[in-house]
Amino acid sequence: MTGAAPMPLRVSFSGAAHGGWRVTQSVPVSGEGLPDASYVAISEGQAAPAGGALWTVSGVTSNLRYTTTEEKSRLASMSAPLGRAEATRAALIPIRKSAVWWELGQDERRKIFEERSRHIGIGMDYLPAVARRLHHCRDLAEPFDFLTWFEFPVSAESDFNHMVERLRATEEWRYVVREIDIRLTRSASEGTPS
Amino acid sequence: MTGAAPMPLRVSFSGAAHGGWRVTQSVPVSGEGLPDASYVAISEGQAAPAGGALWTVSGVTSNLRYTTTEEKSRLASMSAPLGRAEATRAALIPIRKSAVWWELGQDERRKIFEERSRHIGIGMDYLPAVARRLHHCRDLAEPFDFLTWFEFPVSAESDFNHMVERLRATEEWRYVVREIDIRLTRSASEGTPS
Repeated sequence: MTGAAPMPLRVSFSGAAHGGWRVTQSVPVSGEGLPDASYVAISEGQAAPAGGALWTVSGVTSNLRYTTTEEKSRLASMSAPLGRAEATRAALIPIRKSAVWWELGQDERRKIFEERSRHIGIGMDYLPAVARRLHHCRDLAEPFDFLTWFEFPVSAESDFNHMVERLRATEEWRYVVREIDIRLTRSASEGTPS
Repeated sequence: MTGAAPMPLRVSFSGAAHGGWRVTQSVPVSGEGLPDASYVAISEGQAAPAGGALWTVSGVTSNLRYTTTEEKSRLASMSAPLGRAEATRAALIPIRKSAVWWELGQDERRKIFEERSRHIGIGMDYLPAVARRLHHCRDLAEPFDFLTWFEFPVSAESDFNHMVERLRATEEWRYVVREIDIRLTRSASEGTPS
């Protein structure tokens, strides 16, 4: 009974006039975008989201819903943490999937997600350069189902672009009805989530 | 793209002095119980939970995490809805699972849940007499991971008792660290969730 799982952590991302990450691009890939903001501020746990924000989206780190034990252990051995000094670039990609996706059985979603779309496999090709944290929000009455946060060095930027292109070409992505691709650069003086 | 899935519905159960269901028994099966209350009031969606409640627990109806497409369609064909006139008995069973459970891979949790514990299969043995709605709350910073609400006629009460005994004897239940078994009778004058 060692290695207790961390409790779900609530994380809010706010588009605001100040924040740890400066927005360099915000592209609505599918569906409606979010209002343009200069910075994204991140607050975790009990911390209140940034005041006066143009928008705030929240999610929760939680247990993975498709990843097998074997995949989980490979991911853990290959992944880098958030907050690396050299990871000065980031992306926040909020996604919403269709009602049809959510009506599928667990086995069918897993088949599409990994056996046919290789979502986990594609992500692994970019480890450890691209660090990643997934936040679930479908159950939180939020406008998105997932918020994925990525951090990577400048040198991995074109690889990162390649990764999102590959994912967007998959069968899984046919179920994505809203997606925004927000790119960021770490602000000089502010921190990053630990 | 027909048959859109219902959005997750937030549901709160409050132990209070008034409510649609009168508490006949509240037994802490594992871990700490909840304060004794005379009634349970149920509020759904945007409705505020009962004021002055001794306790309120909330969850969200959401996509199922283990059920295959085939199991889902069998369940749908066999299940009764909530709110049947003859279903004057109910049970609210809040459950929390251990950190070890949540650290398991999806494949391992599915194996324990169904291939080895037959959670879905056992439940099917009591359909359609026992109607059931599952509410997820692990991601909501709630004290429980799941709140399951059952409704059944008096005539199915001993079968229902048998069902929960069978489930509690499974391998899956070794991961249950807190469980409360609250039994209820429909109040004469008040409604039930639709």
